[in-house]
Amino acid sequence: MQRAGRLPFPAIAGNDAWSKHLFDNRHGTGQSALSAIQQLTNLGVAGRMFCVVGYGWVGRGIAQYARGLGARVTVVEVDPIAALEALMDGHDIANLSDAAPRADVLVTATGGINGLGSEHFALLKDGVLLANAGHDRREIDVAALAGAAHSAEEKRPGVVCYTLDGGTRVYLLVQGELVNIAGGQGHPADILDLSFSVQLAAARLLASENLTPGLHKLPESIDRQVARTKLGTLGIVLDELTPEQTRFREQWAVE
Amino acid sequence: MQRAGRLPFPAIAGNDAWSKHLFDNRHGTGQSALSAIQQLTNLGVAGRMFCVVGYGWVGRGIAQYARGLGARVTVVEVDPIAALEALMDGHDIANLSDAAPRADVLVTATGGINGLGSEHFALLKDGVLLANAGHDRREIDVAALAGAAHSAEEKRPGVVCYTLDGGTRVYLLVQGELVNIAGGQGHPADILDLSFSVQLAAARLLASENLTPGLHKLPESIDRQVARTKLGTLGIVLDELTPEQTRFREQWAVE
Amino acid sequence: MQRAGRLPFPAIAGNDAWSKHLFDNRHGTGQSALSAIQQLTNLGVAGRMFCVVGYGWVGRGIAQYARGLGARVTVVEVDPIAALEALMDGHDIANLSDAAPRADVLVTATGGINGLGSEHFALLKDGVLLANAGHDRREIDVAALAGAAHSAEEKRPGVVCYTLDGGTRVYLLVQGELVNIAGGQGHPADILDLSFSVQLAAARLLASENLTPGLHKLPESIDRQVARTKLGTLGIVLDELTPEQTRFREQWAVE
Amino acid sequence: MQRAGRLPFPAIAGNDAWSKHLFDNRHGTGQSALSAIQQLTNLGVAGRMFCVVGYGWVGRGIAQYARGLGARVTVVEVDPIAALEALMDGHDIANLSDAAPRADVLVTATGGINGLGSEHFALLKDGVLLANAGHDRREIDVAALAGAAHSAEEKRPGVVCYTLDGGTRVYLLVQGELVNIAGGQGHPADILDLSFSVQLAAARLLASENLTPGLHKLPESIDRQVARTKLGTLGIVLDELTPEQTRFREQWAVE
Repeated sequence: MQRAGRLPFPAIAGNDAWSKHLFDNRHGTGQSALSAIQQLTNLGVAGRMFCVVGYGWVGRGIAQYARGLGARVTVVEVDPIAALEALMDGHDIANLSDAAPRADVLVTATGGINGLGSEHFALLKDGVLLANAGHDRREIDVAALAGAAHSAEEKRPGVVCYTLDGGTRVYLLVQGELVNIAGGQGHPADILDLSFSVQLAAARLLASENLTPGLHKLPESIDRQVARTKLGTLGIVLDELTPEQTRFREQWAVE
Repeated sequence: MQRAGRLPFPAIAGNDAWSKHLFDNRHGTGQSALSAIQQLTNLGVAGRMFCVVGYGWVGRGIAQYARGLGARVTVVEVDPIAALEALMDGHDIANLSDAAPRADVLVTATGGINGLGSEHFALLKDGVLLANAGHDRREIDVAALAGAAHSAEEKRPGVVCYTLDGGTRVYLLVQGELVNIAGGQGHPADILDLSFSVQLAAARLLASENLTPGLHKLPESIDRQVARTKLGTLGIVLDELTPEQTRFREQWAVE
Repeated sequence: MQRAGRLPFPAIAGNDAWSKHLFDNRHGTGQSALSAIQQLTNLGVAGRMFCVVGYGWVGRGIAQYARGLGARVTVVEVDPIAALEALMDGHDIANLSDAAPRADVLVTATGGINGLGSEHFALLKDGVLLANAGHDRREIDVAALAGAAHSAEEKRPGVVCYTLDGGTRVYLLVQGELVNIAGGQGHPADILDLSFSVQLAAARLLASENLTPGLHKLPESIDRQVARTKLGTLGIVLDELTPEQTRFREQWAVE
Repeated sequence: MQRAGRLPFPAIAGNDAWSKHLFDNRHGTGQSALSAIQQLTNLGVAGRMFCVVGYGWVGRGIAQYARGLGARVTVVEVDPIAALEALMDGHDIANLSDAAPRADVLVTATGGINGLGSEHFALLKDGVLLANAGHDRREIDVAALAGAAHSAEEKRPGVVCYTLDGGTRVYLLVQGELVNIAGGQGHPADILDLSFSVQLAAARLLASENLTPGLHKLPESIDRQVARTKLGTLGIVLDELTPEQTRFREQWAVE
């Protein structure tokens, strides 16, 4: 909207605040998505092959938590820098047509549409679990899956088994809704503290400052203050730079 | 009972089977205890300090899964070999009086009694979570805790806050019962497959063989067969030693 | 220099390219610093407490690789957002005066000056190893250390033991020079491929385009091309967005 | 020899001591083998696919350290219990003919012979590194490799490139000798402390006790004393069981 010149009021890009996306998107979604998958299925994670589609902050959180619980992870990503990061983080990289047949659990986190569409269903392994942790239920094409299946049966609350031609059973979690919210308790409360603090700080700024219409960044000083307050609640007080260190930082390093 | 000569019938030590304790005790309890703690509290794991009392198979599972989810772990252990293993596995080692004051979450897994007793309550940090994943509710002295508290209040289902003198709030999960069973769904179903296979194999052996009274080990060939069957269900077929390799293994390596 | 208006020619900020700092600074320095410390000392990493001063890309690489080898890590950092990231990454956070007395190995990676100065020497543990992986030999105040010691002895090539008052032995690696370069082979060759590709691409741009004086960013398309080429050498070809997915990304998500 | 009745003097199985194989074989070989591979090749580990043949204590050390440095790991193993452990530890499991073509680095650790023989050479990927960390140079069939190659060239000290028919280049490290010893400094000194302590304790026992001919186990109390002494040098003092806890442990849990 900003780019299209259609933002007639001041707004603050809360999700771009470091105190938000570094923690909420990665750790909040990572932990709660894995927790929800465990709760919904009562299956072990260790030894399973996870395919994570998308390696933004949410995707890397899911990959990291899956691996932390003992899974192997294959990442599907279109951006080469993010793909190389995933590889160096210890994950496999593959395109979706190579990754899907190996997946025991496939999680979409693209923030886009059609992360898993009808053209991929034939590739899936019998018994695969499908979950979405990305934008909304547009990431997995649920309507196409229902259409392609000759039967659908709820096996446990929130777990529907679609049987495809050839007998492949595909278990869709919470109908492709956000698995950590529709299938669990959502983000851990103490991680939401950070996100809500960012939102509160942004709201105060909007209320108190006479900002121009358009999209604004949360000022870095406020972003840092949110993180510092969080650390304070954990009893952590950081060192500060000495004046000499600050001076060194601010100069360009030529003497 | 075996040592005391009081086992008048044949029995098989199922828990000693590798296919049981390497997976059920470590991965089964590890995953499900951490999952239950998340469900009961809706708190994040990353960044928290876990104190795990006991580093047997259960304790190392809990330590490993807590760490995999981003926690730091301090292990309390009386056996020096297990303690050294924990240290080399990347955990802190401390005795309980040093570890308790730093713990955000304290989990007992000693298989014994009084892992956390009245003499330790004064050491605990305000807000600490207590959970038991060990033998049964004897590991945390719940009666003593209730006695020491001047108030007890259930904050969420399965989470009781005891307020001690001085105001320290101690949150006890599911009254010190096994946190993964009383507070969650228990072990993942696919890990129990292994344990139940061991029990079934042991039962068949007891029914079909004329075993002498006393305690027997599950034969290694059966133990391996359980693991091999499990791998087969995952589509994994292993190489076998060539005759030449087998011969080399069986000789003593002198030529 | 750019800010001070003293950059009279076009320059490209190569280190700001993602293909450079995400890999060279983190993985290149992380691996090679740990490798050099092992080579210089022939000591185990597992079970040791590393104190990493600074959690920029270099610091987080060192923390990650130390931990991957089994160490525990305490991070010292002045920026609250980076400190909170370190905590959620599973490391301890402390200020230097709390962290130094626990360190078995202390590595500076601040990019500034005086990461470890004379005011900290009295805090160090007997037997501590000191290494610098940050900017240059200004991070550890070597002259002050030599002045404070009543003896200095080279124990192994590149390892000097300074004995302080009270008998504390402090082992300084390669005189506080960059440990991975002065004490090892420097960055792995295949990671330098990325950095040199960025530099080559920047040089070509400077030679071929008529850039204005001042600091320029490496264009994202070139940055991505470097990563894509690297993936190609590993046999990895990524999916591309479909036209429909691209359209969805580019719209603002209101229908 | 014991089984064959050919051990005419008392001997102590030092390698079976916990204080030896849990640390020396796993951590000592794991760290030093990975360190040697880095030194010999100056290549990055992160993002590479390691194939580890054998998942005994040495193999699991190598797998763990490779992964800690960012590699992916495929384990080849003939024992189903060890294979299932490797899988639950987060590694891939495959037989050698499936694993070899994917390997960037292949390390043998079988303790047997012919871990990698002439029948596997055609499967190898161009550019693969071969290293042996197992028993001795019998694990990789070096003579067969030299015979199959139409050229051999030392590219760096300790790195010989064999070019096979079809042009596949295979880089053999230190001629298939133990990579951590022939190509590096061997085990870290502080891990050898444990092994040498076990050997010293065994030697004292043989000298002072009148043991019968044949193979003896190192008594558990001595094994524990070695570990306890090691912890003591690190300043770690463990809790001891209370008399009440000891009594509980020793009873059979029926009241």
